[in-house]
Amino acid sequence: MKIKYELLKNEKNTQARYGILKTNHGEFETPMFMPVGTLANVKTLTREELKAMNSAVILSNTYHLWLRPGSEIVKKAGGLHKFMNYDGPILTDSGGFQVFSLVKNKKDITEEGVHFKNHLNGDKLFLTPELSIKVQNDLDSDIAMSFDECPPASADYEYLKTSVDRTLRWAKRGKKAHKNEQQSLFGIVQGGPLEDLRKYSAIETVKLDFDGYGIGGVANDGESKDDMYKAIEYSTPYLPIDKPRYLMGVGDPIDIIEGVIRGVDMFDCVLPTRLARHGNAFTRHGKINLKNAKYKEDFEPIENCDCYTCKNYTKAYIRHLLVCNESLGGRLLSIHNIRFLIKLTEDLREAIKNDNLLEFKEDFLSKYGQN
Amino acid sequence: MKIKYELLKNEKNTQARYGILKTNHGEFETPMFMPVGTLANVKTLTREELKAMNSAVILSNTYHLWLRPGSEIVKKAGGLHKFMNYDGPILTDSGGFQVFSLVKNKKDITEEGVHFKNHLNGDKLFLTPELSIKVQNDLDSDIAMSFDECPPASADYEYLKTSVDRTLRWAKRGKKAHKNEQQSLFGIVQGGPLEDLRKYSAIETVKLDFDGYGIGGVANDGESKDDMYKAIEYSTPYLPIDKPRYLMGVGDPIDIIEGVIRGVDMFDCVLPTRLARHGNAFTRHGKINLKNAKYKEDFEPIENCDCYTCKNYTKAYIRHLLVCNESLGGRLLSIHNIRFLIKLTEDLREAIKNDNLLEFKEDFLSKYGQN
Repeated sequence: MKIKYELLKNEKNTQARYGILKTNHGEFETPMFMPVGTLANVKTLTREELKAMNSAVILSNTYHLWLRPGSEIVKKAGGLHKFMNYDGPILTDSGGFQVFSLVKNKKDITEEGVHFKNHLNGDKLFLTPELSIKVQNDLDSDIAMSFDECPPASADYEYLKTSVDRTLRWAKRGKKAHKNEQQSLFGIVQGGPLEDLRKYSAIETVKLDFDGYGIGGVANDGESKDDMYKAIEYSTPYLPIDKPRYLMGVGDPIDIIEGVIRGVDMFDCVLPTRLARHGNAFTRHGKINLKNAKYKEDFEPIENCDCYTCKNYTKAYIRHLLVCNESLGGRLLSIHNIRFLIKLTEDLREAIKNDNLLEFKEDFLSKYGQN
Repeated sequence: MKIKYELLKNEKNTQARYGILKTNHGEFETPMFMPVGTLANVKTLTREELKAMNSAVILSNTYHLWLRPGSEIVKKAGGLHKFMNYDGPILTDSGGFQVFSLVKNKKDITEEGVHFKNHLNGDKLFLTPELSIKVQNDLDSDIAMSFDECPPASADYEYLKTSVDRTLRWAKRGKKAHKNEQQSLFGIVQGGPLEDLRKYSAIETVKLDFDGYGIGGVANDGESKDDMYKAIEYSTPYLPIDKPRYLMGVGDPIDIIEGVIRGVDMFDCVLPTRLARHGNAFTRHGKINLKNAKYKEDFEPIENCDCYTCKNYTKAYIRHLLVCNESLGGRLLSIHNIRFLIKLTEDLREAIKNDNLLEFKEDFLSKYGQN
């Protein structure tokens, strides 16, 4: 069965949507944040911990799993759900984002696919739209993504236009190669921050009739927030209301709010787990670094929060673990940070239901960043 | 309240004892294995995970906590239980074992105490029997250990005799310095593998009337198994039957069995978590290394075992996590390895109750080491 998106409510004053996405591994409400399990594991956490924080869907990385353990092993295990023993919905990316970050020379990007070097051992590799889909078919995720060209933030109009057209051709090839009847497939809108290109990319991608749509090219290094928000608002108006929209690689709380306001349903980002590894915690007053000496004798939780970490441990204890490189420290912060973003999407859904999303945003922003 | 040990049964054919130890933080049956939470955390694990594997008591290291976060901070938090949010019994060692491993020159060991360098920053430090007890009083563990001299495995008779006498004088000083009415204090028997010294050390230490007795000097590098077993069997006959006996730093399954047979009640060791970090798992057929390529497509659990890891994950998945340096891999192995030793002590208690400990040992040994 393919996924089924049900739009339950539009917020009155914005483009925001409240809906429900049904998959073969359970359904979840949207807007929703998806934690990233790069290597078939949301770093440091078990599925029970994800469940306890109301995490409902995770993302896993095709490029990384293709290399380790190899998609043939995941297939032999019975697919990614069985391999990692995770019974909730899983979305896999196409590998495009990782692969384009490894390309050294523009001529390595060809119409057929992309030449690049394995980041682990330097071996030459070649990824095509068909191979990306084949790997994702083997991984047997609930949602696969089309293999798209990810242009750099600095790309000019001509580069972006050429790239949008190639992404469309690759989307067609990927759709043709897609053989897994149980797996849904999303197309990806590109076009940088440019209105005409986003519109063109959205309209042409929708013509190919995917199960949902990603908005790509917004999580590049060096891209401005303004450009990101433009890219979203130039894309969503041309996407069908009965299909989910997924903003790829975005997990900053403010960006999630701005994305939801512009009609986005799904988000993913390594930010909460990466921040945790470096000792940082989201709070409603902005990010704090628990390694800071001022928390040495702070016997209060990170904040008034319903997560396992805040219900059980003090800042002083977490700081001690971090300073001593005890991995439980990063794990406790991962739990808090992911729960923070999941809770944010819960609050956003409430605000959509209550038609007070703009007030929610104003209130959130008035506090966030005070630290 | 001090701890209370109740001897419930002696095994018919050996010195093994089945008993119960009551503490201010709950009671537990003995023989029992204690996982080590060096820095106020059993590496990678939470208290819920420890509870799920029937772990009932943990050990924490005075030397490490003295340095980080510092015993004054733990005291301000309300003691170690509150600091780490662990409500079960905790035993702290004296710091002696770590400190003696850091001594560079024999003249740094004085009657007053031991000079050594902080292993983190090279600062000069000085630990005395009184200071070890003061730090442990501040940590507020359920059971504190006397500060003893830990002689090297190569020590000759004269060294050992001098060391036993000094350990006795230090035990007296520590007992006098002990001010925490809620905390029990154990003395430590030393004397290497020598019958007369162990007997002398045991009898004289017992005269000082401690709440329980450690058997020390058995976990040195380079010491033979035979010497360890001798050290135990030369000590336990002189220890009171109404007080618990704790074999310090021992966690090899066979050594636990041999210790129990010779009348030991408690064990601790970093082995299960250290092995886990290096990819090793205990099994009933001996240790295996999960990083081995032969487990790449092994979609079975480590073994037929009731732990969370074996109930949920395959060797292939754990291998993948280990190969990718995902910390969940070491965590899953820590769970299995600690559960393995806890389960071993459960089986040993059953064997004591059934008076078939020697048959149990024979059966265990016939399988163990087959890998």
